[in-house]
Amino acid sequence: MNYSLIFKLIGNVLRIEALFMLFPLVVSLIAGGGDHPAFLWSILILAVVGTLLTILKPKDKNFRTRDAFVVAGLSWILFSIFGALPFYFSGYFKGFIDCVFESVSGFTTTGSTILTNIEILPKGILFWRSFTHWIGGMGVLMFVMAVIPSINASSVNILRAESTGPSPDKIVPKIRETARIMYLIYFVLTVVLIILLKIAGLPIFDSVINAFSTAGTGGFSNMNTSIAAYNNVAAEIIITIFMFLFGVNFSLYFFILGGKFKRFFKDIELRMYFLIVTASILIITVNISGIYGGIPEALRHSSFQVSSIISTTGFSTTDFNLWPGLSQFILVFLMVTGCSAGSTGGGIKIIRLVILFKAAKIELVKIFHPESVKSVSVNGKKVNNDIVSKTTSFFFIYFAVFAASVMLVSIEGKDIVTNITAVISSMSNIGPGLGVVGPAGSFASFTPFSKVVLSFCMIAGRLEFFPLLVLFTPSVWKKRLIK
Amino acid sequence: MNYSLIFKLIGNVLRIEALFMLFPLVVSLIAGGGDHPAFLWSILILAVVGTLLTILKPKDKNFRTRDAFVVAGLSWILFSIFGALPFYFSGYFKGFIDCVFESVSGFTTTGSTILTNIEILPKGILFWRSFTHWIGGMGVLMFVMAVIPSINASSVNILRAESTGPSPDKIVPKIRETARIMYLIYFVLTVVLIILLKIAGLPIFDSVINAFSTAGTGGFSNMNTSIAAYNNVAAEIIITIFMFLFGVNFSLYFFILGGKFKRFFKDIELRMYFLIVTASILIITVNISGIYGGIPEALRHSSFQVSSIISTTGFSTTDFNLWPGLSQFILVFLMVTGCSAGSTGGGIKIIRLVILFKAAKIELVKIFHPESVKSVSVNGKKVNNDIVSKTTSFFFIYFAVFAASVMLVSIEGKDIVTNITAVISSMSNIGPGLGVVGPAGSFASFTPFSKVVLSFCMIAGRLEFFPLLVLFTPSVWKKRLIK
Repeated sequence: MNYSLIFKLIGNVLRIEALFMLFPLVVSLIAGGGDHPAFLWSILILAVVGTLLTILKPKDKNFRTRDAFVVAGLSWILFSIFGALPFYFSGYFKGFIDCVFESVSGFTTTGSTILTNIEILPKGILFWRSFTHWIGGMGVLMFVMAVIPSINASSVNILRAESTGPSPDKIVPKIRETARIMYLIYFVLTVVLIILLKIAGLPIFDSVINAFSTAGTGGFSNMNTSIAAYNNVAAEIIITIFMFLFGVNFSLYFFILGGKFKRFFKDIELRMYFLIVTASILIITVNISGIYGGIPEALRHSSFQVSSIISTTGFSTTDFNLWPGLSQFILVFLMVTGCSAGSTGGGIKIIRLVILFKAAKIELVKIFHPESVKSVSVNGKKVNNDIVSKTTSFFFIYFAVFAASVMLVSIEGKDIVTNITAVISSMSNIGPGLGVVGPAGSFASFTPFSKVVLSFCMIAGRLEFFPLLVLFTPSVWKKRLIK
Repeated sequence: MNYSLIFKLIGNVLRIEALFMLFPLVVSLIAGGGDHPAFLWSILILAVVGTLLTILKPKDKNFRTRDAFVVAGLSWILFSIFGALPFYFSGYFKGFIDCVFESVSGFTTTGSTILTNIEILPKGILFWRSFTHWIGGMGVLMFVMAVIPSINASSVNILRAESTGPSPDKIVPKIRETARIMYLIYFVLTVVLIILLKIAGLPIFDSVINAFSTAGTGGFSNMNTSIAAYNNVAAEIIITIFMFLFGVNFSLYFFILGGKFKRFFKDIELRMYFLIVTASILIITVNISGIYGGIPEALRHSSFQVSSIISTTGFSTTDFNLWPGLSQFILVFLMVTGCSAGSTGGGIKIIRLVILFKAAKIELVKIFHPESVKSVSVNGKKVNNDIVSKTTSFFFIYFAVFAASVMLVSIEGKDIVTNITAVISSMSNIGPGLGVVGPAGSFASFTPFSKVVLSFCMIAGRLEFFPLLVLFTPSVWKKRLIK
C-alpha cells in the first residue's frame, strides 16, 4: 500500500472541503444567522488536518488499483465526518452521530434527515446541507481530479471507484479533461435550473438550495414539507423535468454537445429509463386518481413522485404513504432500479438491469443451443465478460447488504415496512421510504446504532460497494498482496 | 419439436395421475364421506385423455433438450389442472380457478389454501390434498422415470428440468436407477415419520396426512389451525426435525447409505443450512421471548417456525404475523433463501447463494489482482462456468418474476406487505406469508386474476423458471430451431 500517496490525496480532499465551506460561510455572514463560527472552526480544523496529511513526501509514484479503491472509500468516510462539523458546532443537532448521518446523507445525495423542524435552521447551515448534495452528486474525487494534476495512469481507477455504473466512459482520453467537462455540464445545468426556478417565482435563496438538491439528486429542502410548501405548479414541473435530466448519463450530454444526436437517442439505457418513467407515471396516475379527485391532479403528483424516486432525489409534493399498494410497490421498485449510470443518481442503475436481462436471455437460448457461445451486447457493442460478472456480483451484493442491514436496523423494533424501505432508500440514496420514514416522517427516531448502519448503507450504495468492501477486507491492510 | 413423443410422455404422466387417484378413492370409500364419485369421474377422464395422447406412435426417438423442458413445463401445468378435478367435482370449492389454485399449491408443495374452513372437507379430499404434496415433492416426472423405461440419453434433461438446484447429481449412472433410489429414500423417510407421529399420539389418518405434507415440504393440514390444533409437543418436535431433514439434498442420504459419512458432514450446503437454521432460531427466540413469557415457549415456536419456513413447508404453531419486525424479516429472508438443492423444498436454494457469494468474492479479489483467473469451487470441486452464469441468471430472474408478479397482484388493491409476501411465499412454495396471507389467514380473498398469477408463481418457482420460460418463448414453437 502506498500510504504516503494515499495520505497526500486524502489531505488534498480535505483541503478542498475547507474551500467548499467558504461558500456557506459567506452565506451565513450575509444572512446573519449567527452560524458563521461553526464554519470558521470547521474550516480551520480541515485546513490543519488536510495540511498535516500532505506533509509526507510520497516515496514512490506507484499507485495500484487497490490504492485507488482505498482512497475512494476513506475519502468519502472522512469527507462525511468532517462535513458534519458545521452541523455539530451550530448547536442545532442532537449529537455527533446525528450530524454525521446528516452529512453522509448529504454527500451521498440521499437526503434523509434526522431533523424534524428544518425551517428553524440558519441560512448558512441550510446552504451547506444542499451544497453537500451538489458536491457529492458528481463526486468529491472527480472534483479533485479536475483541479489537481493527476498522479499517473492508475488514477482512472479513482474515477472508476467513485463514478456510478458498471463502466465509466472516459469521454476524452485525458482523465482531467473528462472530469472538467463533466463538472462544466453539471455546473451549466445547475445554473439554468436556478434561473428557471427564480422565474417560476421561488425566492433566490430557495432557488439555489433546491437547484443544488435537484442537481445532486439529493432531496434536502429548506422547507418542512419539501417542494409541496411552495404549491407552485410551474416550479414543480421544472423540478420534475430536471430531476429526470440529472438521472441521465452525463456522457450522453457530451454527445449532444458534439452533435451526435443519434448516439444520444439510440442509447438503450436512456430509452429504458424513459420507458420506465412513462409507464410508471401512467399506472400510478390511474391508480391514485380516486385519491386526488381526478386525473390532472393525480398526474401532477405521480409524475413528480416518479421522477423524484427513480432519479433518487427524494423530493415530495404529497405523502405517498397514503397511496394504494400498487403505487407504493412501483415506487419501491424504482427505488431499487434507480436511474442511469454516469448520472448523479443512485440505485442499481438501469444499464445493469439491461445487462442482467440480456445475460438471462442468453441462458434461455442455451437450452436450445447448448453449443452456442453468445455474449451480451449493449448499444451494438459487445460487453466485456468482466463487466458482466461484475454486474451479476453487484446485484448479489446489493441484496446481501440489504438483507444484513435490514436485520441490524430491525433490532430496535420498528415495523418491517419501515425497516425494509429505510434500508433500500439509504442504499439507493433516495431519502424517504414508507412507514415511519415516509415523506412526512424523518429518520430522527432511529437509535444511534441504526443511524450508523444506515450511514454505512448510504456510502456503500453511493460508492457501489466495492471501495467500501475493500476497506473491510483485512488482507488489504497487510504489506504483501494477498494471493 | 418431437410432438408425438411429447404427447406420449404427457399421456403417461396423466395415466399415472389416474393411478395416484386410486389412493384417495379407497380412502373416501372406507371413510364414507360421499366424495368417491369425484375421484371416479376424475380417474375416468384422466384415463381417457391420457390414453388418447399415447395413441400416436412416435416417428423418431430424437429427443432434444428443449423437448425435455417443454415436457416438464406442460406436464406440471396439465397435472395441476387435472388434479383439480376431484376438488371441482366434490362441490366444496367455489369455482374451477379455486380448484386449480389448490391443486397447483398442492403439487408445487406450496400449501397455500383458498379454503377458510378445512375441517368440513371429507377425508378423501383431505387425503388427496396432502398426497399431491407427496407426489409433487420428489417430482412427477421423476416418478415417471422410475416406472417407465427411459427414452434415450436426453431424458436426463427431464430430470434436470424438474429437480431442484443448479446441478442434479446423477448418484448412479442410470437415470432410472437414480429415480428409484431417490423415491425409495423418500418413501422410507415418510413411513418412519408416519410411525413416529402415530406414537406421539396423532390419529392414524392425521399422521399420514401430516407426514405427506411434511415429506413434500408442502404444508396442507387437515386442521384449520395447522399443527397448533394438536397442541402436542412431541409431534411438534418430530415434525420440526423432519421438516429440516426433507430440506436436505437427498443425494447426501445416499452417501450415508454408502457409508460416506465424511462426504455428508463436510457438505458446504448442509453446513450452511444448519448454520442458518441455528442462528435464526437463536435470534428469533430472544426476539419473541417477551411475547411467549419466557425462553422455553419462545424456543418451541421459533424452532418449529424456522424449520417450517426454511424447508418451505409452511406449517404453523403460532401466528407470526404478531411477531416483531426483526423476526418477521428473518422469516421473509428464509422464504427467499429456501433450503437445499435436490431436496423437496423450494426457494433460491442455499447452494446457489454459496455460489453467488463465492463469485462475488472473486470479483473483490480481482480488484487487487486484475490478472488473476480464479473460478468458483464448491466442496473442493471447481464449479463449471456454465453453472455459475446459470445461477446468476436464476437470481436475476427470481427478482424479475417477483417484481412483475407483485405489480400484477397489487392491482386488486391489497396492502404492500400482503402482496410482497404472497408472491415470495408462492414463488418459494411455502404457503403462508404476512398480512392477509399470514398463518391465520388464507388466499380466499384474492381475485381470480391474482389467483392465476400466484399459480403461475408457484409452478415457476417449483420448476425454477426455465421450463416455464421455455413454454413462453414463441420461437420454441416454430418448426426450425431458432438461431
